[in-house]
This record gives sequence, C-alpha cells and structure tokens, in this order.
Amino acid sequence: MKKANKKTNAAIIIVGNEILSGRTQDINVVHLSKWLNQLGVRVEEVRIVPDNEIAIVHTVNFLRKRFKYIFTTGGIGPTHDDITSKSIAKAFKLKYGKHKEAYKLLEKYYGSKNFNRGRQKMAKMPTKASLILNPSSGAPGFVVDNVFCLPGVPSILKSMLGGLKNKIKGGKIILSKTIKINTVESEIAKPLEKTQRKFKEVDIGSYPFFRLGKIGVSIVIRSSDKKKIDVCYKEIVNFLKKKKINMKGNK
Amino acid sequence: MKKANKKTNAAIIIVGNEILSGRTQDINVVHLSKWLNQLGVRVEEVRIVPDNEIAIVHTVNFLRKRFKYIFTTGGIGPTHDDITSKSIAKAFKLKYGKHKEAYKLLEKYYGSKNFNRGRQKMAKMPTKASLILNPSSGAPGFVVDNVFCLPGVPSILKSMLGGLKNKIKGGKIILSKTIKINTVESEIAKPLEKTQRKFKEVDIGSYPFFRLGKIGVSIVIRSSDKKKIDVCYKEIVNFLKKKKINMKGNK
Repeated sequence: MKKANKKTNAAIIIVGNEILSGRTQDINVVHLSKWLNQLGVRVEEVRIVPDNEIAIVHTVNFLRKRFKYIFTTGGIGPTHDDITSKSIAKAFKLKYGKHKEAYKLLEKYYGSKNFNRGRQKMAKMPTKASLILNPSSGAPGFVVDNVFCLPGVPSILKSMLGGLKNKIKGGKIILSKTIKINTVESEIAKPLEKTQRKFKEVDIGSYPFFRLGKIGVSIVIRSSDKKKIDVCYKEIVNFLKKKKINMKGNK
Repeated sequence: MKKANKKTNAAIIIVGNEILSGRTQDINVVHLSKWLNQLGVRVEEVRIVPDNEIAIVHTVNFLRKRFKYIFTTGGIGPTHDDITSKSIAKAFKLKYGKHKEAYKLLEKYYGSKNFNRGRQKMAKMPTKASLILNPSSGAPGFVVDNVFCLPGVPSILKSMLGGLKNKIKGGKIILSKTIKINTVESEIAKPLEKTQRKFKEVDIGSYPFFRLGKIGVSIVIRSSDKKKIDVCYKEIVNFLKKKKINMKGNK
C-alpha cells in the first residue's frame, strides 16, 4: 500500500438528509472528484452526514487536519435546514453573522426591495470567510482555511468551480488508461495480480460491468507517469492475447 | 436537534477507488437507504473509502460500535484489488481463509472444472462469517456481527437484499409527504422555519430543484407518525395558499 500523498489530497463532505435517505441521488462526488483529479488532487475520502450541527462540526474538524483540501456541498441555502455555514463557524470557533461583502453582493443581485430575510440568511457565514462567487444564482460559497463550502445543487456547484482553480495547488496529475475486455474477472485475476506485483508504481483496478446483457471487465491502470502506464498496458495486453481474451470493446 | 435513535440506525461504507476517483457513479447508497428505510432503519452516515486495508479497518471499527447496522459495498470480488473480506477479518481479529460453506457453494455453481483460483478467492473471508446468498451470480456476501458485506455491482447487490430482510430488526418506519411548489426557497424560508419550530416532532426539509428550465422547491415532511405529518402538511399548505404560491406540481 502506497502512502497517501498528503500534499495533494482532498476529502468531500456531503451534507444532507435527502442524500442519506436515498431521496436524492448525489452526483457532486463524481463531478468534484473528476475536477480535482484534473488539477492533480486526489479525493481520498467522502463522508455523507445529516443536517446535524454536531455531525458536521466533528466531521469537518476531523478531516480538515488530515487532508489538504476539504470540500463541503449542501446546507448553505436560505431555509432552516441549511446549517452548514453556522456549523463551519462553530468548527473553526469563528464569529457567525452577516458577511459584509456577501450581503452587498446579494443585495445588488436581488435588488434591495426583494432582498428578504431568507435571502439575507445566505449572507450569514463566518464573517472572516473569503467568498466563492456564484455566476449562476448569486448566493456565494465561501472558504475558511482549507475548507471550501459549496452549494448542493449540482448545476450551481459546477458553475462555481471555475473561479476556484487558482486557489487549488495540485500535485502531479493522475493519468489512467482503460482496457475493456469481454470476460469475467476470475479469468484474469491471477495474471493481473502478478502484473500489479511487477509494476508497483502503477495502480491496477479491475471493475466488472454488466450492461445490456453483456458482461465484461474494465481494467484501469493509474499513475502520474505515462511511460509507466504504457509499459504496464503492454504487459496486460500481452497476457490477454495469450489467453485469447476478446478486447473488442477498446477504441 | 433530535438524538439519533441508536437502536435502528445504520451506516454504509462504500469501498472503492473507482468511486473516489469519479470514474464510477455510486448508486448503491440510494438503493440501500431506501430499502433500509422501508424496514424502519435510518441511514445516518455514509463513508466512501479507498481500496486500502488501513482505511477499511479503521472505518469499520469506528462505525460498527456507533451504529446498529453497517453495510459495506464493494471489494469482495476475485481480483487483487478486492480487499474488503480480508480487511473485515482484520477489523474483527478473525481468521481469514477458505470458508467451507462458501467454497462448496461456489464449486457447485461453477462446476469443479471451472473453479479456478480467482473464483476460489471469493470463498476466502472470515471463516466464521455467515453467508449472504447471491441469487444472481453465485459469489456470496457475508455477515460478521453487525457488519453486512455486499458486492459493489448494483444489480447483484439488489438481488441479495431479499434474503437479508429477516436479519434486520427495524424500528418505526419513517414516513414522508412531499409538497412541490413553483417558487424559490427564500420565499418560504420564514414561514417554514416557524412551522418547523411549531412541529418539533416532524422533520421538514426544503430542497430546491432546477429541471427543464423550471425552478421549484420540494418541501418534505418526515416522521414515523402519519397524523403528525398530516397536521404539519395542512399548516404548510395554508401558508402557501396565503402567499399565493403555485402548488400545481403536486399529485
């Protein structure tokens, strides 16, 4: 087992009873992980926690000391069940209240006439936080230390990531190469294990799939070094050919 | 904040680099949570961890003492990156090896001629575990104490839950009622908060949605007591009518 690269890792905290109850399918993990991966940051843990201040505070305080970046999604909206902002203030022992810049920004966005109490709540956060601008619906996210707080609505979350790029300092980008084969995992388990032992500096994953009545396996080779991936790729293709395993699924 | 009902709660541990990297969209949380909810068990935490023995052992040992039921998904297949079974044995300090019943079952399923090393690996688990039968692809899951280990492939996982029902002792089933409205959250935040304060024994969640160019909010009222939901529902419908908010989205 390789040691986690503490300099460039991240954890995601999904806040929301609606995710835990199965009512809503989370899709933010996939999006955030792919986006971070492109920046050379590897997501190493995800936790989904309820709308519960104690749970959020504990989770944030545990993870923020262990990972370089923490992303939270959800719970920064205007209703009573949105408690992430307040919980983050508590986790950092910071003052929670009207954030002047956020207030101005939201007042301008809605117009002072329509800037009701619910909307004003979205300007409440740790007063010292720096803002993450929201090009799609006005209400900003915020950053405290290494904790980035984003909304739960996927389309809004996506629109806010662009402005964050220069705040993330990634490491080497993890590259990958996939081989799709038409067989079952047990047919390749032995040579694949042998290959993983030979090439310790790449990660080889084996993922069965069952789609449209067809079964198969995706073999994924991951490394930050393209050459190492290529050498390992050749070795795998060689044993697949020897075993006469169908690789038709590959481009 | 209500205290967690420790008697009937659960946590889910998703094992898999492919989920953390964003390569694969998890859909098991939604399925497991809904299934457990029907049995009166509330999922209160989810953790997604990498294919890493230390991470799995720590996570299992932390959560299994705090929740009534733990479900793991993924990592019980035949390849080198499937390390959940071994990790569970380690977490419980149990012997890991050939499970006699699982071995027999798999040998029969594949036929002794086709029962290769990869397939034999799927019979390796804590030797004292009790099995969870797999009607769709042979390889069983297993239970150790309060930890239920299931595969990661969603269709196979689903097929195995039927046989588990009598092993789960749930509490009161959490019921819910949803009101869909065509407005934004900030328009209802104030009266909704007031309603939540008045009806402390129900949970009111507010979830904005953005679909097909339409915006709206789903208000979800949850409780194990249908009468309490109904009373709260009336109160909310009343204030929506007063505010002339469109409720056309409801059946």
